[in-house]
Amino acid sequence: MPVVKDYYTVKLHDTDAAGILFFANQFRMVHDMYEKFMIQNGFPFQERFTKGDYLIPIVHAESDYLAPLVTGETVEIELAVERIGETSFTLRYVIYDLDGHVVGKAKTVHVTMDLKTRTKISLPLPFRQMLEGYKGE
Amino acid sequence: MPVVKDYYTVKLHDTDAAGILFFANQFRMVHDMYEKFMIQNGFPFQERFTKGDYLIPIVHAESDYLAPLVTGETVEIELAVERIGETSFTLRYVIYDLDGHVVGKAKTVHVTMDLKTRTKISLPLPFRQMLEGYKGE
Amino acid sequence: MPVVKDYYTVKLHDTDAAGILFFANQFRMVHDMYEKFMIQNGFPFQERFTKGDYLIPIVHAESDYLAPLVTGETVEIELAVERIGETSFTLRYVIYDLDGHVVGKAKTVHVTMDLKTRTKISLPLPFRQMLEGYKGE
Amino acid sequence: MPVVKDYYTVKLHDTDAAGILFFANQFRMVHDMYEKFMIQNGFPFQERFTKGDYLIPIVHAESDYLAPLVTGETVEIELAVERIGETSFTLRYVIYDLDGHVVGKAKTVHVTMDLKTRTKISLPLPFRQMLEGYKGE
Repeated sequence: MPVVKDYYTVKLHDTDAAGILFFANQFRMVHDMYEKFMIQNGFPFQERFTKGDYLIPIVHAESDYLAPLVTGETVEIELAVERIGETSFTLRYVIYDLDGHVVGKAKTVHVTMDLKTRTKISLPLPFRQMLEGYKGE
Repeated sequence: MPVVKDYYTVKLHDTDAAGILFFANQFRMVHDMYEKFMIQNGFPFQERFTKGDYLIPIVHAESDYLAPLVTGETVEIELAVERIGETSFTLRYVIYDLDGHVVGKAKTVHVTMDLKTRTKISLPLPFRQMLEGYKGE
Repeated sequence: MPVVKDYYTVKLHDTDAAGILFFANQFRMVHDMYEKFMIQNGFPFQERFTKGDYLIPIVHAESDYLAPLVTGETVEIELAVERIGETSFTLRYVIYDLDGHVVGKAKTVHVTMDLKTRTKISLPLPFRQMLEGYKGE
Repeated sequence: MPVVKDYYTVKLHDTDAAGILFFANQFRMVHDMYEKFMIQNGFPFQERFTKGDYLIPIVHAESDYLAPLVTGETVEIELAVERIGETSFTLRYVIYDLDGHVVGKAKTVHVTMDLKTRTKISLPLPFRQMLEGYKGE
């Protein structure tokens, strides 16, 4: 199945004095899901730091906010792999409230980079193969 | 049972360039658990803001760090009500790694405050009764 | 002058275990500058909450990351008003290192919203006039 | 002079839906000042990561909150070195509003630790000497 789903409950520290989710924290939310996705598929971030082989920095991010989210509210987040390139890939996230309405969207573009030379490298094969399994249509 | 338990997986954004949990984020972790505890016991934070009856600000916090935590690491957090006073209460948290070693501790002191007058008020009775149920020995 | 400039020094808590700025925190950085810009131009955020007249939520955000930033590094952030619509406006940010290289970019789209009805309203005139003064060419 | 002073303006993302500073973010505030203090005295954090000689983790932290802080509010933070031990030191922070009232306090205990062995080491001499210059009476 090309789409992964998970739930997130908005925390007090995700909100600000306007009473709703602070926009930058939606990126934190979707990145939490990306991190869990990587762990569950055998590519935990921590391994990148201990092995010191390559890093996967984000080079572009964007998001839309369609409805305000308050603390304690639970949302469902869908992750799909939108695009797989030679040295980069794009993840797409859709956030739903529990009535099924879209309340937010996000996209992150990642590149694979050699840790020492800080230059782009091709997506390592096992990693590329894992991503292929989650490619949305 | 006087102690509540939950799991938390350290996120990349909880860490800093030293490679481990940034100390202030341990407070975010334990507060997440407090928030979940309040929701599960019928006192969701959001109700305080919409009803506008009273607030429960933190007036003191402290924490100990016994071992470094890295991203992707799952810990178990125990919450207990340590003390219940007339206008305040104290929560105590112990954080364990999955081998059962204590890796962190925290304590937060909360007061109940009238939203309009900004003065301390006695703990509302239903809230006090709920807390009593979780009082550690 | 259509462009506002300010400096920011990357903090340890802005970074993560990869040793560089966590991507979502670049949004926090540019939003800090937007907030300062609003204060200096007579539209402090806190006034929106106390007056309770209207809010200015962000409905879209995007960013590019051109170079890694480490803790202690000082960057220069430029803010310009890119577009002013009937019920919305767009801010554009360019981030430079101290050698003058672009290390990041961001864009945020804001709408003005009635606090009670939660519907879009036209930009209040004094606010619109203030923004006009910072419109980039 | 044993005390260092600096100003901080509370940011929207420092607050939460209660309309005031989220307690954990006061630790972020005082740590920002500690980081600036280290840079200005020749011990930038980044050097610890690139040299990889030793780290200075926090093992204990505590704070008091005496008055609510809202976004846009500027406070003055005082830092003093309270105690210098063989392998650890304690920093003390006092936060004032612009009328001179104490609105918050904090304390952080730091140890010096060998990066490889993860064991405590004596404070390196030049670092100890720097700290001595800021010891409060």
